[in-house]
Amino acid sequence: MKQSQIFSRAKKENVTDQSINANLLIRSGFIRKLMSGVYSYLPLGSIVLKNIENIVRQEMNKLGGQEILMPALHPKEPWERTKRWQNKEMFKIKDRNFSLGWTHEEIVVPLAKQFIDSYKELPFSVFQIQNKFRNEARAKSGLLRGREFLMKDLYSFHQNQECLDSFYEKAIKAYFKVYQRCGLKEKTFLTLASGGSFSKYSHEFQTVIEAGEDEIYLCPKCALAINKEIIEEEKYQCPQCKNKDLKVEKAAEVGNIFKLQEKYTEPFDLKVKDEKGKESFVLMGCYGIGISRLMGAIVEAFHDEKGIVWPKEVAPFDIHLIPIGKVKKEADKLYDNLQKEGNKVLYDDRDKSVGEKFAEADLIGIPLRMVLSEKTLEKKCVETKKRNETKTKLQKYKG
Amino acid sequence: MKQSQIFSRAKKENVTDQSINANLLIRSGFIRKLMSGVYSYLPLGSIVLKNIENIVRQEMNKLGGQEILMPALHPKEPWERTKRWQNKEMFKIKDRNFSLGWTHEEIVVPLAKQFIDSYKELPFSVFQIQNKFRNEARAKSGLLRGREFLMKDLYSFHQNQECLDSFYEKAIKAYFKVYQRCGLKEKTFLTLASGGSFSKYSHEFQTVIEAGEDEIYLCPKCALAINKEIIEEEKYQCPQCKNKDLKVEKAAEVGNIFKLQEKYTEPFDLKVKDEKGKESFVLMGCYGIGISRLMGAIVEAFHDEKGIVWPKEVAPFDIHLIPIGKVKKEADKLYDNLQKEGNKVLYDDRDKSVGEKFAEADLIGIPLRMVLSEKTLEKKCVETKKRNETKTKLQKYKG
Repeated sequence: MKQSQIFSRAKKENVTDQSINANLLIRSGFIRKLMSGVYSYLPLGSIVLKNIENIVRQEMNKLGGQEILMPALHPKEPWERTKRWQNKEMFKIKDRNFSLGWTHEEIVVPLAKQFIDSYKELPFSVFQIQNKFRNEARAKSGLLRGREFLMKDLYSFHQNQECLDSFYEKAIKAYFKVYQRCGLKEKTFLTLASGGSFSKYSHEFQTVIEAGEDEIYLCPKCALAINKEIIEEEKYQCPQCKNKDLKVEKAAEVGNIFKLQEKYTEPFDLKVKDEKGKESFVLMGCYGIGISRLMGAIVEAFHDEKGIVWPKEVAPFDIHLIPIGKVKKEADKLYDNLQKEGNKVLYDDRDKSVGEKFAEADLIGIPLRMVLSEKTLEKKCVETKKRNETKTKLQKYKG
Repeated sequence: MKQSQIFSRAKKENVTDQSINANLLIRSGFIRKLMSGVYSYLPLGSIVLKNIENIVRQEMNKLGGQEILMPALHPKEPWERTKRWQNKEMFKIKDRNFSLGWTHEEIVVPLAKQFIDSYKELPFSVFQIQNKFRNEARAKSGLLRGREFLMKDLYSFHQNQECLDSFYEKAIKAYFKVYQRCGLKEKTFLTLASGGSFSKYSHEFQTVIEAGEDEIYLCPKCALAINKEIIEEEKYQCPQCKNKDLKVEKAAEVGNIFKLQEKYTEPFDLKVKDEKGKESFVLMGCYGIGISRLMGAIVEAFHDEKGIVWPKEVAPFDIHLIPIGKVKKEADKLYDNLQKEGNKVLYDDRDKSVGEKFAEADLIGIPLRMVLSEKTLEKKCVETKKRNETKTKLQKYKG
């Protein structure tokens, strides 16, 4: 993509957003704030969001999830049935008995019920990638906590505990695959958290970042963490190896998974008979990843004083090509060739100073900067620099 | 995809939805109704929706549109500025000064304004593919008129009339390319319609279908139509060739485009100076296609008494493979081979009668049915039948 043709751009401006992620993403031209907790994604931000979305979609497909799309606009009835109509996080529509979906158990269970006639239909799992709405009182963490945010939610349906437990373990692996591809694996830990009323604990995936709203107690031996909210209950020790030497870290939740058991199938009377004719409620699990939140967490985890440092798979482009001096013809050709080789290239064809171009490239954070100048051209080279390194390298190139 | 593994399926059921599209899409297992005008997309429906979305995205990219994503949750202020806060189609959030986006002029203009400092930034266009919400009093036409629906909206920004006019003509061509790829080109006509307060006429794209809510007067010579609402004003003649022999047809709107001129740039004071320093408001066009509505229109246009007849590019699969009798091993292999050759295949591996499988295949409407039986196997053949033809054909296949 030619940089001159993108309507949005990095701008020096006074960003009032307190969070590092929103601050960097706004200044570098990825997003704009419409109001507290509500953001527009500009062309570069839109590409990153799609990249993360595709990683999540691919891993959910591999897990066997079937993609569906449920509405954001919900009627009152199913929410009254589960006694969640009064939930404070729910936006309601004025003069109508409608609400906006902040989660979808109340929609997916009656939907699944239409197709589950027998234990033979089980197990299966469905997921969607869709906007959620939450009436957050204070939405101050940029993309980490939105009133409107893109989320992947997957729901699994099982006949018995063994089947749910086994799928749940596979889902944990799929989640770590997502974090690995987003560059976050080394910083992200499976974390025991409060399970609410339906099971003792749930699991969160917590990414260690300075600006994290959560505090986790990390067992370095097991790479297992315990959320602060339950550490007292766990007597300040790792529930797995009983290690008491836990490391306290600030972290942001980038996913959570619950064994819902029969919590939502019971109110909707979703039952099946087993092979012997014994009837029981279908067991469920639910598995969430905030796609836009993940984008925020990646920026929190990967930036320096100059700007964002995108991990390879989520970066909006592979290469940032910057021509210097009178090399337009050669740079145009290099741009074409790099694209033909399958690279996604951002081409800074604008009439700006080298200093401005370099500063903006650092702010935007594409993994590889490639400079073509009269000087490098003499040596039939380009100068390359990785965003996360300081040293430059001369590299031969075919003109 | 193996049909046994899809949780949703065609079901004989009493569908109360009055529209042909919802009726067929529900019975064939593509969608489910959550409430009036609000639908869930099941796995097959989700694939079709994505296919249409991708066609639209590709054509908008070719037109030069830059993809962005704006929020659905809007603050009050910009809507008060344009005096549209009281619009009846707008859902409002209870106890909050927020509304749900039913269109995005009020959001995109202030967004664009942040980046337009000079006429040199013009022209450009941005688009998004996003859920819209409309407070429809009666939503009775299935996917043709939803309270929540997936829409592509593109907005273009220009310095002068010539530039807007020229882009507008290109957009018309891009729209016809979309309808062509969706199989609708022969049935879809550029239609003059009421332009509202800001220009004499707008253009709609109307697809001729029996269940259409609109009535158009079609000039067979020019392939131009006039919406009933302005035919009196046009004296019942074609404005282009003055032909009075117009054909009255029922039709459904599958797109509309407006020259907004300065209607929305004026309230937000979006101006640029030209080369000579003369200041004027930026001119705008807006261009909408309802993605989910298009899905409904395609079903209305392409079905018979047995079910849906999907056009090739939007169909959820290319081939519906149906094994009959003891041919599992060979069918499994054929399924793999067809996929390796790049075909998208739905494989009916279920234990059902031939009659049931065929009836369901017709209902689902995949373009090519391929039957492998002991009889066809003897001849080293498969039996193929196109969904829109009655004759079957024996075709050699490599085992």
